[in-house]
This record gives sequence, C-alpha cells and structure tokens, in this order.
Amino acid sequence: MKIGILGATGAVGRQMLECIEERNIACDELRLLASSRSAGKAVKFRDSELIIQEAKDTAFEGLDFVLGAVEAEFAKEFAPAIKQSGAVFIDNSSSFRLNPDVPLVVPEINGEDALHHNGIISNPNCSTIITLMAVAPIHRLSPIKRMVASTYQAVSGAGINGMRELEEEVKALAAGEAVQPKVFPAQIAYNCIPWIGSDTGNGVTTEEAKLGNEGRKILHNPEMKVTCTCVRVPVFRSHSISVSVACEREIGIEEAAKAIDAADGVRYLVEGYPMPLDTSNQDLVFAGRIRKDPALDGLALWCCGDQIRKGAASNAVQILEYIVNH
Amino acid sequence: MKIGILGATGAVGRQMLECIEERNIACDELRLLASSRSAGKAVKFRDSELIIQEAKDTAFEGLDFVLGAVEAEFAKEFAPAIKQSGAVFIDNSSSFRLNPDVPLVVPEINGEDALHHNGIISNPNCSTIITLMAVAPIHRLSPIKRMVASTYQAVSGAGINGMRELEEEVKALAAGEAVQPKVFPAQIAYNCIPWIGSDTGNGVTTEEAKLGNEGRKILHNPEMKVTCTCVRVPVFRSHSISVSVACEREIGIEEAAKAIDAADGVRYLVEGYPMPLDTSNQDLVFAGRIRKDPALDGLALWCCGDQIRKGAASNAVQILEYIVNH
Repeated sequence: MKIGILGATGAVGRQMLECIEERNIACDELRLLASSRSAGKAVKFRDSELIIQEAKDTAFEGLDFVLGAVEAEFAKEFAPAIKQSGAVFIDNSSSFRLNPDVPLVVPEINGEDALHHNGIISNPNCSTIITLMAVAPIHRLSPIKRMVASTYQAVSGAGINGMRELEEEVKALAAGEAVQPKVFPAQIAYNCIPWIGSDTGNGVTTEEAKLGNEGRKILHNPEMKVTCTCVRVPVFRSHSISVSVACEREIGIEEAAKAIDAADGVRYLVEGYPMPLDTSNQDLVFAGRIRKDPALDGLALWCCGDQIRKGAASNAVQILEYIVNH
Repeated sequence: MKIGILGATGAVGRQMLECIEERNIACDELRLLASSRSAGKAVKFRDSELIIQEAKDTAFEGLDFVLGAVEAEFAKEFAPAIKQSGAVFIDNSSSFRLNPDVPLVVPEINGEDALHHNGIISNPNCSTIITLMAVAPIHRLSPIKRMVASTYQAVSGAGINGMRELEEEVKALAAGEAVQPKVFPAQIAYNCIPWIGSDTGNGVTTEEAKLGNEGRKILHNPEMKVTCTCVRVPVFRSHSISVSVACEREIGIEEAAKAIDAADGVRYLVEGYPMPLDTSNQDLVFAGRIRKDPALDGLALWCCGDQIRKGAASNAVQILEYIVNH
C-alpha cells in the first residue's frame, strides 16, 4: 500500500504522519507532499527519513490513498490529478463534504458510507466530528430532532500559525508590548472571538453552518434542526462543545450516558467533567455532565476532543483503515 | 446620605467605590467595612482618604444604605445588624435573591421592584444580569417561553484571587513550572472548566440554576423554561453568553436588534460582534450576532458585559440611585 499526505508540513499533516506510525499502518511507501518551500526537507518516520516532495499534478502517481490536509482551494486544485492517478482522496477540507456523491464519514458513526465512494471521501469539520461522537449514541436510541450547540474552539483549528499566535500574544502582553493579530480577527489571548469563517449570508458563519449541514448527512437525519454558535477561545488544541439535543422520544440521563460510554471512540465521565487540557494529545472524545434540558425537553451535555487528532488527522486515518479492512 | 460598603477590599467592593465616585453620588459619609485584617488601611476617595473599619454588628449605625460585596455566609451574618441599624441592604450575594419579600433588581428591567422592599434588595448573579440585559428587550416584545444559554465566564467572577490565579498560572507555565490551582478546580490558563459552584442535586450547578430561577423572578415570567451551561474561560473580566430564546410570537431579527439598541444600558452591534476584551472596564452590555434559531424556532444571539461592573458593582450602585431618585 502506498499512501500520500498532501500538506504534510501543517498541523494536521504532521499529525497524520504520527497517526500512521502509532496505528502501525502497513505501507510500502509514504509520500509527503507540500509546497515548493518545504520540498527537500527531511522528516523522521519509523526508522527512516522521508524527503518532502513538491505537491504538483504528477506527484500522485502510483499512490493508493492520498490524505488531504490542505485548504479548500488546494484540495479542489489537486482533486482531478489525484483522481487521474487512481488514488482514493480522503480530504480534510470543506471542498467536497456536501457533494451528494462524496461520502462524509466518521468511522464510528457511518463507516459504511466510506465504502460507496467515487474516488473522494470527505473528513468532516472538527467541531462536527467531536459533537457527533458524543451525540450519535443518543441519536441511535431515538433520532435527534433538534440540537443547539455552542463551541469553545481551540486555536489549533487555525493550524500551527493559530497556535503560535496565541503563544506570541501571551508573551507580548507579559512584556508589555502591543499585540498585532494576524491569524485571528482580534487578540485571542484572554479573549473569546464569536466569529469563525465567513458569513453565509444570514448572519450564520460558514463554521456554524457545518454542524447542521454535515451533521444531517453523517447521521442520515435530513430533518434535524440545528443551531450552532462557534467561538474561538484561548485554548491550544481541544475543542469543547456545550450541546443540547431533543429526540423523537424522551431519553433518560442514565440511558444516554450508558449508550455514550458503550460506543466506540467516546467515553462518558460519571465523576468530574471533560476539559480541553485533559483531552488533548489523544484520540478519544470525552462527554460528561448529561442532565435534563428543560428548554428543549431533551438532554444537555458537554464534550471535548482533540481538534488535530479526532477532529481531523486521526479521523482521516481511521477512514483509510476502515476502507482497507472492509 | 450615608453609604457603607461591606467587603470594601474585594474586586466588587473596590469597584463599588469607583462607581460611586464616577457617578457623582452625593454622600455625606462613605464608610468602608472589611475584615479586621484590612481595618486601619487608607483608601483614596475623591479628594480625601478613607480609613477601612472592621465589619461588625455595630459598624452600620447611622447608615442609609449598605452595599454588600461579601460572600453569602457573611451577608447572612450581617443582615440582622444592618436591618437593626435602619439601613437598606443592597446585597450582591446569592443569600436572599429568591426570598419572596426581597426584590431582585436590574434597574433597566424591573427597577420598580426595588421600591417595594423590606430592608433588603438583592443584586442578581453576574451572568444573569448580562444575559437579561440583552434579552429583556426581546421579552418586552413578546414573552420568552424557552431559553438556552452557554456562558464563557471570566475569572473575575472568583474575585481578585481568581484574576491572580490566571495571571500566575500563565507566568508559571511560561517559566516551565508546575501549576497548582487553588481558586479554580483545575488549571484555568489555556483551559475551559465547565463547572462553577456546586451540584444542586440533579447535575445542574448552583451557578447554572441562577439564570432560570433569577431570570423568572426579574422578568416576572414564572413559566420561562431555561437551560444553562456555565463555563469558566481564561478571560479576565467580561462574561460572554451564547443565548437562544423562543418567544410567544415569532420575533424578527431587525425587530429584536432595534429593541435591544433602544433599551437603556445595552447596545446592539450591527457591524462586528462583542468580545470580552472590548467590553471590559465599562458599564454597557453589548449584544450582537442576532440570527434565526432553527432548533428553538426563535432567535440566537451573543452578548458580553463586564462582570465586576454591570455584573455586580455598577448594578448595585444603580439600584441605590433608583431608590434615591424615586
């Protein structure tokens, strides 16, 4: 098996490499592709060194899978060449997620969808993956009709530059220097920014629209009504979500907690509560604090997961594993 | 007029002193009361110096108003002596808020309630004040039936020690030292803690229960159903709230935005969005991002306000002003 990583030098691309190593995925070749700026640099992988190659249309020849960790515009640019090469493109960008002939997959939830692809499989948005990992087990008890979510999103969602910006702002403020945001629209240190992405036209951001649009597709639940507020917070790499759900039938607290804890890839904390610091640098999503939701006549809960891992890289590598194993 | 501040050395007590100075409240005496540890210390006020006196039962004699900025247990301890002295006790603690004969007041919303007191008037919870300042104008258009709120609460909610803890943790981490939380149940730097207060018995925290219990009383809206998730974030002094409301009749986005902007003490941002950094150290509550809420068949919005000022000290001083002016 030959695997390529497109965008191998970013936060998600590097994590994909680590995931492949950790999960002992057998591959005869691992090809790291990035911009010409990074081409030629060496990266450690298992007992050897890999040399980063320039991402261009001819770079995908002979590959079985390409894991995409680039922005939407580059995913679109390279998709035809990847298709041409015969490789399956598992893309982390938003480019193809809502295409009817592109499966959008969280393996623990709708892994089977991945088997019916036409060359492209999309990896969902990070907050969407983490939220759905927590609520899908409840949805399996009784379909979710309505969902309200407010996110507490880590700076890693904006990649390595986002993480650096938080670090540098904290340093600058400690030194009494002015802060000049570049990655985020405002200072993120000691602040919350309730705006991620761009306006979809009705005041809802592109990031907020994803939970509904992608969630309905992943859960095969076209009628689910979703309200989402996406907020950037000064946290490094785990996203947290405060979420309320109302299902067709009333679900009990214990019933929901048990269903979550029995599901693959997610743990329910009976004591205490998940926090972004505790859930970083690992693959599980943690849920907790399930309680009655009087406003929705449903349940409220809190969940956290590592944005770079389960929110992006690990989920993409799991899709690859799912296809290989089925 | 003679005014006392009980708990004059804490974050809220100090801010009360500042508010009295800023708002040019005429007073013949301002008596600062605190624990014996602080007694004897001098504090600047207008052109003079005030000497802090020890808070004890005989310390309230001759006062017309006592502004309370102490924990619930001390508020309860001193309430009888304050009543005995004939002073009106405007208390910022949670001790008396839900007592049927104690008005719970946000002057811009239910100022008239303050006039029907029996010696004690309660200042509401900080997140409750800030959330209600944003949604009360919508409620006046049509009664709110259901509300879902997720908070992003500043460390100032835990007083000066909470603010110091965030500062010290950031310093310690920068120096590569271990962090030892004392005020908060976990490291707050670069983290979110979804637990404030204690368990009310059903998984809901005392802090979360306040928005519903206090909100119903302040809005005179006993049937309002409220779900709240309270989360501490690494922000210094403004609370933010992501809130959804459904009213008896459907309210339009423009109609709601206009109503909010026309209300006293709150501004609606048409461009951009409120952020905790921008709304600190001033008295207005800022709302923004009103949009349709498909899950509740209502409206979603975002609001921010300074926790120490409008969330506590300024609101208490405004209650005093309201009584004096009426």
